[in-house]
Amino acid sequence: MGLLDRLIRLSLPFIPRFVVARVSRRYIAGPTLEDAVATVRALNAEGAMATVDVLGEEVREERQVAEAVAEYERALDAIRREKLDCNLSVKPTAFGLRLDRALCLRSLDRVVAAAAAQGGFVRLDMEDHTTTDATLELYRELRARHDGAVGVVLQAMLHRTVADVGALLEGRPNIRLCKGIYREPRERAWQDRETVREAFGYALGKLLRGGSYVGIATHDERLVFAGMALCDRLGLERARYEFQMLLGVEPALRRIILGAGHRLRVYVPYGEDWYRYSLRRLRENPTIAGHVLRAFFRRD
Amino acid sequence: MGLLDRLIRLSLPFIPRFVVARVSRRYIAGPTLEDAVATVRALNAEGAMATVDVLGEEVREERQVAEAVAEYERALDAIRREKLDCNLSVKPTAFGLRLDRALCLRSLDRVVAAAAAQGGFVRLDMEDHTTTDATLELYRELRARHDGAVGVVLQAMLHRTVADVGALLEGRPNIRLCKGIYREPRERAWQDRETVREAFGYALGKLLRGGSYVGIATHDERLVFAGMALCDRLGLERARYEFQMLLGVEPALRRIILGAGHRLRVYVPYGEDWYRYSLRRLRENPTIAGHVLRAFFRRD
Repeated sequence: MGLLDRLIRLSLPFIPRFVVARVSRRYIAGPTLEDAVATVRALNAEGAMATVDVLGEEVREERQVAEAVAEYERALDAIRREKLDCNLSVKPTAFGLRLDRALCLRSLDRVVAAAAAQGGFVRLDMEDHTTTDATLELYRELRARHDGAVGVVLQAMLHRTVADVGALLEGRPNIRLCKGIYREPRERAWQDRETVREAFGYALGKLLRGGSYVGIATHDERLVFAGMALCDRLGLERARYEFQMLLGVEPALRRIILGAGHRLRVYVPYGEDWYRYSLRRLRENPTIAGHVLRAFFRRD
Repeated sequence: MGLLDRLIRLSLPFIPRFVVARVSRRYIAGPTLEDAVATVRALNAEGAMATVDVLGEEVREERQVAEAVAEYERALDAIRREKLDCNLSVKPTAFGLRLDRALCLRSLDRVVAAAAAQGGFVRLDMEDHTTTDATLELYRELRARHDGAVGVVLQAMLHRTVADVGALLEGRPNIRLCKGIYREPRERAWQDRETVREAFGYALGKLLRGGSYVGIATHDERLVFAGMALCDRLGLERARYEFQMLLGVEPALRRIILGAGHRLRVYVPYGEDWYRYSLRRLRENPTIAGHVLRAFFRRD
């Protein structure tokens, strides 16, 4: 990472919220479910699938878990009513993973059951490494009850992922594979950018050859190409995998993937709790963070 | 390599010995066998294996060869007495390779025979390209007498290594594969960092698929990952390979490798003749050389 990038990343915590808010508009559908529905409808119209995420993480009270469940149930209603090509992404910590594990499982089970009842699907998002074991365990329990309606995420940057792929493959899993965006310690995660790419490629090959359904979630052009080439080499049917990208990141690459005839799903976050999500997006992309800083100092 | 790195490397010969001595402490167990034993014991306690190297190269007198033999015999005694998980690494030039080839073979044979008698193992280190042919020849002769108790090293940076792998594979060899640390001419060695990485990966695949026991000797995170992934893909038993690292280099990576369940051996040099070994370590790692230079100019 260049010196300027590093400087920009270090400055992020000092950027005023109103500046983050302005830039975060491109990454977030808006504060309400109606905003998300409009965004998903537009994505479906251009041939992309979607997954909606109700913004929020790390709840402190049971009441917040009930609110999250209710909001996801509203989203499921809207998906059915509007006939959207869209599933759900949920963060275990927003369902109380660290507050009360039993409550978390019960609440996730309720949303997954509701999704399954209408032919839908729920992806358990993966958060930082302190949640990996618990999230994989939740996935196994939910899959045992609702096979085909739930999936999980593996992060290529974590050392453990090669072993996790091996352990999960027995059950024909549904995996989103991404590099991982959380800052992780040296002891847990590969730090070199190229090593993370290698790790992504290796895990992808192992998953696809092992019969997993894979969401190939990356904005890295090199990995997008490698993924396309691998699916082609293995002669995979389109229904065996999909590409995934985040709303607002690299729309040109989105069109390239769709243009090549692959399926693509866009991650659409919505809700009031936009701050932490937006900071991660900015940290991921120092170029954008640079724009933010310049915009701020110019006071334009 | 950056300009600063290059400048630092060019300055190395002008760094006073006392400064090199201070920094070399982290790469060397100490002047005596007792220092080496203490270091190996600590490594064994953290789950790593070891190999001890009596510092010294390029002897000028027969007397020095006898001294090297005697010191390695003392080391073998200590390994047996202290029940250490440790083998030996020897440099052919320290056994008189350029002085008297017959003396060199006879002396190496004596150490390898002694090691074999106690179920031990001796690795012939590889030095610069002028010694490659002679060292491989010594390896073949020693292996014919003590199969299973002796191994050799191949350096990915040398052009000849691809052919050497092919020639050696017939005998189910025991090979340490490293990039190579000696400065070699353009006519003999790949100069581009990425090419050396590719060459390492290619040789590693050829060795492992060909049934060689391999010591994967690198501190390059990318190659460590590639090695782990390849062993995973080939479904190799742990007893078929080991990772190898030098004392004092990247202890965090050491813990990562052990944590992932692979076997790891640490190279533990000891003895009085620390200067040339330390210079090579410094040249390999300009960051550390930078610390040295700064320390020197600050006179602290």
